[in-house]
Amino acid sequence: MKKETNQPGGVTLTMPPWLEKTSAIRNRIVITDPEERMRWVIGVSRQNVECASGGPFAAAVFERESGRLLGVGVNRVEPLNASPAHAEIMAMLFAQQMAKTFDLGAVGAGSELVTSSQPCLMCLGAVLWSGVTRLTYGATAGDVTSILGFDEGPLPRGWQLELNKRGITVAGEYLRADAVAVLELYKKNRGTIYNGRGGSGEGKA
Amino acid sequence: MKKETNQPGGVTLTMPPWLEKTSAIRNRIVITDPEERMRWVIGVSRQNVECASGGPFAAAVFERESGRLLGVGVNRVEPLNASPAHAEIMAMLFAQQMAKTFDLGAVGAGSELVTSSQPCLMCLGAVLWSGVTRLTYGATAGDVTSILGFDEGPLPRGWQLELNKRGITVAGEYLRADAVAVLELYKKNRGTIYNGRGGSGEGKA
Repeated sequence: MKKETNQPGGVTLTMPPWLEKTSAIRNRIVITDPEERMRWVIGVSRQNVECASGGPFAAAVFERESGRLLGVGVNRVEPLNASPAHAEIMAMLFAQQMAKTFDLGAVGAGSELVTSSQPCLMCLGAVLWSGVTRLTYGATAGDVTSILGFDEGPLPRGWQLELNKRGITVAGEYLRADAVAVLELYKKNRGTIYNGRGGSGEGKA
Repeated sequence: MKKETNQPGGVTLTMPPWLEKTSAIRNRIVITDPEERMRWVIGVSRQNVECASGGPFAAAVFERESGRLLGVGVNRVEPLNASPAHAEIMAMLFAQQMAKTFDLGAVGAGSELVTSSQPCLMCLGAVLWSGVTRLTYGATAGDVTSILGFDEGPLPRGWQLELNKRGITVAGEYLRADAVAVLELYKKNRGTIYNGRGGSGEGKA
């Protein structure tokens, strides 16, 4: 996978060129149906695998009522040498730049994070800080671990309830089979498993 | 607090100008004593409050044996409109750029994340992906919540053990009183509490 370098003084987290084109038209993308939002996100995750531009994950932030896309992200850990560059983090960063606020709850009638796989521990925490008021995921953390060996971290028991308590609704396993198919494709393509030191992935030292 | 804007196509996470000078000499900073590493990091967190360039938190990644500084970060949530821009995330991103790898465990004899306050849920998850093999913190999550009202998220019970299981040692409450004094200063200065929608901070809508 091609490595990209950053200028000193700042770290720039970029989308792959094929997705930049999509990002450029984000003002015009509107998807009102929840399942269609997920279908689009899973399509982006598949393209990230097919283009070998990162891990098999994509996420996007939509305005809940209007369905306007605020930001989209794909996993960029390996090409950017940036372990925090998960799809959800990228989508939230781009959406917050677009909305010019660190609080995505202040946008329209609130916003939704749609992610092709259930968030890992880091991204779960990031959801709490982001201001989104709804989380929708496709594949489960169990799928991610069992198919690819990623260590998703010690997810707190009752994590959905913890989100609910903070005003965030959760809907899971939307188009799960389609999301799982992308994980399987990444496995077939022998994609890198970029676990930390203690993870159980086959790609680690 | 001055807002900064980003170019389209990428999100650039920058350090404040006063810290860029420090970053510029990161190749030459070596701190071998663990307590001195923390003292330096807490000093950076204090300067972030005094300069009103972000939240009252700083973090840095050091090569464990040599003590060479690989990356330093401060909280930049508000000035960058980026909820994931916590000090730990910033420090890890900069260190990974410096080391040209997403795995900070591959650097020298391993690396250490030193953070002025115990990581929140997001940053705890980020530590697991980063490859660092040691985590040292100053103030506790309880300090951060009780003094400032930040919602640190549902930290898993036995989180230190979860890190240990993954090959990461944890040392806590280094110079805690000094770290707490910076939190108190932020409170006195009426710094923004940038919780998500469901947090209990006074600064939220």
